[in-house]
Amino acid sequence: MRVGELSKRSGVPVATIKYYLREGLLPAGVLTSPNQAHYDEEHVRRLRLVRALVEVGDLSIAAVRDVLTAIDTRDDSLHKKLGAVQEAITQPGSVELDPLAVEDVQAFFARQGEGECVDVTESNVTHALAAALSAARSVGHDHFPELLEPYLEGLKIIAQADVDYIARRGSADDIIEGMVVGTLIGDAVIKAVRRLAHAQVSRKVIGDGTGD
Amino acid sequence: MRVGELSKRSGVPVATIKYYLREGLLPAGVLTSPNQAHYDEEHVRRLRLVRALVEVGDLSIAAVRDVLTAIDTRDDSLHKKLGAVQEAITQPGSVELDPLAVEDVQAFFARQGEGECVDVTESNVTHALAAALSAARSVGHDHFPELLEPYLEGLKIIAQADVDYIARRGSADDIIEGMVVGTLIGDAVIKAVRRLAHAQVSRKVIGDGTGD
Repeated sequence: MRVGELSKRSGVPVATIKYYLREGLLPAGVLTSPNQAHYDEEHVRRLRLVRALVEVGDLSIAAVRDVLTAIDTRDDSLHKKLGAVQEAITQPGSVELDPLAVEDVQAFFARQGEGECVDVTESNVTHALAAALSAARSVGHDHFPELLEPYLEGLKIIAQADVDYIARRGSADDIIEGMVVGTLIGDAVIKAVRRLAHAQVSRKVIGDGTGD
Repeated sequence: MRVGELSKRSGVPVATIKYYLREGLLPAGVLTSPNQAHYDEEHVRRLRLVRALVEVGDLSIAAVRDVLTAIDTRDDSLHKKLGAVQEAITQPGSVELDPLAVEDVQAFFARQGEGECVDVTESNVTHALAAALSAARSVGHDHFPELLEPYLEGLKIIAQADVDYIARRGSADDIIEGMVVGTLIGDAVIKAVRRLAHAQVSRKVIGDGTGD
């Protein structure tokens, strides 16, 4: 297909496609004449992934390039690639870590059978968890870690649905694009649905004042 | 207690307490001499709530005042007050709403038995949900609403734990403070734990390349 069709199929404007080509985020097409290149399905998939990283993940061009390099590392398993992309799209949290909150996270991992001494700064995900628990401690909520087990229980149901949602996709690029969109848009959906669930449960436990 | 003790108990500096008193976010203490006021447990609780709204909820002083007015409305049930506070601490989402995403939300509510024609703009929570599904549609993920039911299933477990966490608190101010902290810090904790759950489930479904 020509660049106009590629734009239509991917939802990315032609000028943006040309910018991504110059930045090396998209492999060049096959030249069919000095001024015309031909693109294929691989380009459509790669472009959708770049778009998800830029528009949904809010990643810089340099960060997108790092993610693509991780994906294109030939010998890594898909599981390892998904882990690398997850790191790239996760903010570590900006709160200063409370050593007691770091211990909270380590104790949680120990209870999960994952060892006693996880280094929380090694991953953005564990750093974000320690940062959130530090924020809880800073306002006197030292018992917040009690919620980690029920949270994990509920989130395993959610994670299973997330993985089913992306596993039916065909290529590695499609799966990773689905993970980026599912993870980040899923965060926003979960925030909203959690509040709906709060209202439902609170009506039952606390009552809504109608005497039901 | 005097203002120094109030500061120690609530974790709020004396100068900030005096500012909150001037802004009407905290009722005046009982004057025991022309320069000295006496504060009680109600002040400690109210101050912790104001602190949670400002530091965790990132609310403006005007927004905190609105929340306190809602809480202090004598005839409302606790359920209704919790709903008003939940609205105040929820961002409606900044994406332009896609009419098809609005229909997604309405169809979801209809499946939950909550009527056919929910007006999503009436609440920040439903608006945020429609905005997130609009973002999904804008990158071609029209099937994202399929995830709403499993998300709700997992989030009911989480919401039950959240409500248990705050229901054991004594006063209305304490319960509402627990809801603000639990909702907002919980959002960040859930984001991180969801990624841990993703890694666990993905290892099982996709495999980690070790041949297990």
